[in-house]
Amino acid sequence: MSYTTYFEKAVAAQKVFLGLTKERITEVLLALADGLIAHTDAIISANQQDLDRMDPADAKYDRLKLTPQRIEDIAAEVRNVANLESPVGRVLEEKDMPNGLHIAKVSVPLGVVGVIYEARPNVTVDVFSLCFKTGNVAVLKGGSDASYTNEAIYEVIHHVLGDNGINADVVVLLPAEREATEALLNASGYVDVLIPRGSQGLINYVRQNSKVPVIETGAGIVHTYGDASADADMLGKIVFNSKTRRPSVCNTLDCLIVHQDLLPLLGQIAAPLIDKQVQLFADEASYQALDGSYPAELLLPAEPEHFGTEFLSLKMAIKTVASLGEALDHISRYGSKHSEAIVSQDPDNIERFLNSVDAAAVYANTSTAFTDGAQFGLGAEIGISTQKLHARGPMGLAELTSYKWVVRGNGQTRS
Amino acid sequence: MSYTTYFEKAVAAQKVFLGLTKERITEVLLALADGLIAHTDAIISANQQDLDRMDPADAKYDRLKLTPQRIEDIAAEVRNVANLESPVGRVLEEKDMPNGLHIAKVSVPLGVVGVIYEARPNVTVDVFSLCFKTGNVAVLKGGSDASYTNEAIYEVIHHVLGDNGINADVVVLLPAEREATEALLNASGYVDVLIPRGSQGLINYVRQNSKVPVIETGAGIVHTYGDASADADMLGKIVFNSKTRRPSVCNTLDCLIVHQDLLPLLGQIAAPLIDKQVQLFADEASYQALDGSYPAELLLPAEPEHFGTEFLSLKMAIKTVASLGEALDHISRYGSKHSEAIVSQDPDNIERFLNSVDAAAVYANTSTAFTDGAQFGLGAEIGISTQKLHARGPMGLAELTSYKWVVRGNGQTRS
Repeated sequence: MSYTTYFEKAVAAQKVFLGLTKERITEVLLALADGLIAHTDAIISANQQDLDRMDPADAKYDRLKLTPQRIEDIAAEVRNVANLESPVGRVLEEKDMPNGLHIAKVSVPLGVVGVIYEARPNVTVDVFSLCFKTGNVAVLKGGSDASYTNEAIYEVIHHVLGDNGINADVVVLLPAEREATEALLNASGYVDVLIPRGSQGLINYVRQNSKVPVIETGAGIVHTYGDASADADMLGKIVFNSKTRRPSVCNTLDCLIVHQDLLPLLGQIAAPLIDKQVQLFADEASYQALDGSYPAELLLPAEPEHFGTEFLSLKMAIKTVASLGEALDHISRYGSKHSEAIVSQDPDNIERFLNSVDAAAVYANTSTAFTDGAQFGLGAEIGISTQKLHARGPMGLAELTSYKWVVRGNGQTRS
Repeated sequence: MSYTTYFEKAVAAQKVFLGLTKERITEVLLALADGLIAHTDAIISANQQDLDRMDPADAKYDRLKLTPQRIEDIAAEVRNVANLESPVGRVLEEKDMPNGLHIAKVSVPLGVVGVIYEARPNVTVDVFSLCFKTGNVAVLKGGSDASYTNEAIYEVIHHVLGDNGINADVVVLLPAEREATEALLNASGYVDVLIPRGSQGLINYVRQNSKVPVIETGAGIVHTYGDASADADMLGKIVFNSKTRRPSVCNTLDCLIVHQDLLPLLGQIAAPLIDKQVQLFADEASYQALDGSYPAELLLPAEPEHFGTEFLSLKMAIKTVASLGEALDHISRYGSKHSEAIVSQDPDNIERFLNSVDAAAVYANTSTAFTDGAQFGLGAEIGISTQKLHARGPMGLAELTSYKWVVRGNGQTRS
């Protein structure tokens, strides 16, 4: 089958949603959750085929590995999405114009959503359920490492759709080959939006090469600024939480910026990190402040490359500044506009920080670990956008919709 | 100056808006309107230099030509934008979470907006005023045909900004050379969004080659469907209006789809078009229905290429269908998702049409000529988006904003 055939099927399948009520969509997703659990053995066995050809030492191995519990978790997430309110068909604006026209701005599905991802088989289910819930056709291109697993999951989805009398073209799984990625990047006119999920390399490649509009879900180079007035105890807890809670995710702290007045308290602020063996790359002033109290084997002088690095591990840079302005400059230069925080007791400095910093999420006196769809009350998340177009930060169901203008008249013409 | 230097200046200039109140922005734009009129002679004289090197028979000549009246119109549009309400800083959503966090979704400027356009010098002023009003830095790449005019207008803008003590880097005019376009298409990380304004060729080129997120403002292949139940008189007026009002713009009717039951009335429906010398490309059934009543020299048999064509002139295709379903299929196949209309007295058919048709604007019993920012009550328009991401249809000030999540806590960490 040529790629164009896949894309044509996807475009044609958009019609399916015209015949599906929101209630039916919910029912089908609940049936999918049951179906995944019912087919646990088949999925696990396909997953084992994928695992068998991977080195267990490979970082991808753990992400790829499914267990009955993991499948139950995935099914639970499908049920969660099933039971969320649909954002489709909302009247976002409505007005009666002086000429008698009635104009409504109504939310509609984006249409055909393409997702390119790596060896995370849960993404196959997540993306399908989020897209199906919002009336979008999903075109999936998974990693070749997970191809057996993805095929097995795809079969369960097709099975459930078939049982419910729904055209299974509402989800298209492209072959796990590189040419499929190329085809998807060129599917302008068929695919309305492309969301890459995975490594920065994948995301850069998609941005550089896609002819289809892309939503970037990119790196988080995250700072927390401890202001002169910060409560050292609060700062210590926030730094510990945002650095060590899940070091491998994008909202994790990469660089602590400290006001020089806090240096005498820096040992106390950093102390909780010792237990987690967090390695620090400290600039000269902070190095001196920590020397003696922080374990020597974990304390290293910062090199220029440590600033502006997303560590994704238990490493953190420390930068000392003489003012809030200097902190803002540092963030503006090295941040990736993802999540940035200030810890301060000074209301003016807090407002200046929140207003000045250009990032998807800006925080005062709390942890950047909260940059997450569920934590923001979105119910589910398809990714965290690091661009400014369309959606910014955590993207939930509403971010999978566009809108159309519906205009009703009784013969009006424009003069 | 290297292009990177231009882009770095633009990025740095975003800060300027942190120090500008909405009132100041309004004042500066009103001063610009005055400045443009005060410098009419200089602008006209630069414009003459551009005109002198162009063939007056060139279609671009008229678009490029400025007169004192045209400059007054441009200034009036700047005043209009100045006096609109700013969409920046709006709290779009606000919630208190169970953990005590206060989360607000606040509208912010997009950042750096790039616009590539052809020989329309009014775009220089329009884009600057819309961007300045919304706190965006504008990076402009105008057509080389208009370079003297654009430089003269740019000088007036700089002069007004300087008089008001504002860093003039908030608007950057790139050199009118092809390399500047290339640089802009690759300015990922500097420019947040690129909006091409001009021919389909320019738009396609930008979509194909940009590494920066693009908002497409593309072709309108526009249909109006006359349902079996249509009021023939109303249909005739709507067709006349949407075909002849401004044939060269994107919301103009390209193909009339008629239900076969209407064929006996087609002569009456088409009659008003004769005065405007509209050339019809009619399919077999509609040709027969018009043969004899519509002037033979204006009535031609439709060839396949006439469907799916944006004529941008006094030409129109006619397609006969046996059902609404057939009309929907025709629109789905040939439309460009811009503006589509139904004329009908049947409420069920109207609803089915408005729900099923995937287009930026869908109309019942009125003219597609209303697809326009001012007509939709947006106050001003930077373009009409034909994509689904970010903005769809007419884009006003609000569509030049993004948002950020502002989270306030008192020491919360994530468990």
